[in-house]
Amino acid sequence: MSDQPSISTIQTMADVWDAYRSELQGVEEQIQKNLNSPVALVNTVAGHILSSGGKRVRPLLLLLCARLCGYTGADHHLLGCLVEYIHTATLLHDDVVDDADLRRGRRTARRVWGNQISILVGDYLYSKAMRQIVDFRSHIVNEVLADACWKMAEGEVLQLYYNGNPSMPEADYLRIVEHKTAGLIAASCRMGAIIADASPAQQTALFRFGQHLGIAFQVADDTLDYTANGDCLGKALGQDLRQGKATLPLLHLLGHCSESDKSMIKDRMETRSLTDQDLTRIIGLMRQYGSIVYAVDRARRFVDAAIADLDQFEDGTPKRALMVAAEYMVTRDR
Amino acid sequence: MSDQPSISTIQTMADVWDAYRSELQGVEEQIQKNLNSPVALVNTVAGHILSSGGKRVRPLLLLLCARLCGYTGADHHLLGCLVEYIHTATLLHDDVVDDADLRRGRRTARRVWGNQISILVGDYLYSKAMRQIVDFRSHIVNEVLADACWKMAEGEVLQLYYNGNPSMPEADYLRIVEHKTAGLIAASCRMGAIIADASPAQQTALFRFGQHLGIAFQVADDTLDYTANGDCLGKALGQDLRQGKATLPLLHLLGHCSESDKSMIKDRMETRSLTDQDLTRIIGLMRQYGSIVYAVDRARRFVDAAIADLDQFEDGTPKRALMVAAEYMVTRDR
Repeated sequence: MSDQPSISTIQTMADVWDAYRSELQGVEEQIQKNLNSPVALVNTVAGHILSSGGKRVRPLLLLLCARLCGYTGADHHLLGCLVEYIHTATLLHDDVVDDADLRRGRRTARRVWGNQISILVGDYLYSKAMRQIVDFRSHIVNEVLADACWKMAEGEVLQLYYNGNPSMPEADYLRIVEHKTAGLIAASCRMGAIIADASPAQQTALFRFGQHLGIAFQVADDTLDYTANGDCLGKALGQDLRQGKATLPLLHLLGHCSESDKSMIKDRMETRSLTDQDLTRIIGLMRQYGSIVYAVDRARRFVDAAIADLDQFEDGTPKRALMVAAEYMVTRDR
Repeated sequence: MSDQPSISTIQTMADVWDAYRSELQGVEEQIQKNLNSPVALVNTVAGHILSSGGKRVRPLLLLLCARLCGYTGADHHLLGCLVEYIHTATLLHDDVVDDADLRRGRRTARRVWGNQISILVGDYLYSKAMRQIVDFRSHIVNEVLADACWKMAEGEVLQLYYNGNPSMPEADYLRIVEHKTAGLIAASCRMGAIIADASPAQQTALFRFGQHLGIAFQVADDTLDYTANGDCLGKALGQDLRQGKATLPLLHLLGHCSESDKSMIKDRMETRSLTDQDLTRIIGLMRQYGSIVYAVDRARRFVDAAIADLDQFEDGTPKRALMVAAEYMVTRDR
């Protein structure tokens, strides 16, 4: 374990990455070293998406939670790698399900190698992670990770079920977000606590922290889809709506706008016929009815809940870094 | 545990199914009971393919291997169900990868609900199985099953890599077959031995039995694609070739036929332009050059190896049933 960076230097997310760069390098090496299938195509395709600028949020949180609970070992290298493989597997399948052409500004694997390869390499990365996780011989690690994967799949199906349908209760929206995004983040946080031999109460607190942070992340991301400067992410605004996905700002708007606006929005979602003019109008309505403010506020409250989950832990650099990471979920511009 | 059926009554595969029908009923109930996602669409889609006449070969072999090793409990109900879920997950993904419209004479899930749902419900069934398997809290069961899943994914990618390419070494063909088909069958057999607390030597012998039987099954299946009465399976002959897949009879033929015939076959595979006339000619060439006989003989030798793997076990009804099941791999007509 390297020397703990000083708490006073951690002010922004960039400071967090800087402070833990060398500790995360081990995760990065594991990610590359582990891509050793005798079937070269697997390594090429997996390497394409794994080297496309992902921020390794899950391995970072796993590491921070482990350090918060006093862990001094290096199991986070392999565990962080495996969590990232699982995350990558879901991205490969998501891109097929969403017909996505771009991810992080680069062509998706399905655009380069086709849907078939993307499905099978996703299966490969997921099953490789499950194969390696069992070698830790920890029933609780197995349980936490398998639970997260199962819920992710359920969240994805629920999201697809509501595709093109704007009449989704907010509770189901939150359930989708919790399962498909927050579950693996929460599992990563809890795994950090597990390898540190933290108490059940601490494990539960860090699981909740990850859950709250993960929901905040996704709600903020869904809101940025109506507000961000598209250049930062290499994709245009309104992507969710174009794909028939109702997210929190839209659900709020549909609950407040006029019947005629509601009909227009429903029609564009169902027929996938959104024009740029429609989008400008919808974003204007969202500002008028306070839908953006509402969604940002919801995300903010999940961040506050995440920070409150850290109450029982001692102050220090890891706690400071986790708080900054939580704040970052609602302050980033993608 | 019900009374053991008498050894003398087990002559054919139908006798095996009859003898163990009531013991397999528990697997069937588990398969249905376990489809309890709050997302109803998951249950509908999974139920569609799980109720489409699959023979539950893997749960049967798991049960027979457990009984062979003296097991008297009922863990095979849930374990058999989970293995069947994993098998079903691979079928859902395979049908997307192969653009398949029919399976067992019924419309595939992707034809009824689309590729997206098939991918995600496949992910769901797989992750549900992995989630439930960890509740057994057996490291060796986790390891055996996760290993099989990982190898299956690798086999699938290797198969896709060779798609449309007739220049595949026979060793790679056998590697694909071993990974994609035999691995989960071998794991099922070994899990039967594990729940019976069988010795490591017995576990290894039954794993090998499953591996040999699984390879025989796939080689025979690939051969039936050039010989079977298509009506039995609800699909026409030559499907593998139409999909650009080279299997054992074709690889043998390509190693023996004239250069002009080889060019014709390569062209049809690469351009996916096989006519019925081409197929009739290719099947004629296979008969002329002994390719069908060669492949049937290879499958036969794997069955013999599987039966030899049972040498160390005591005679009795389970052993008799396993031998009949192994024989069935090369005597069935689909």
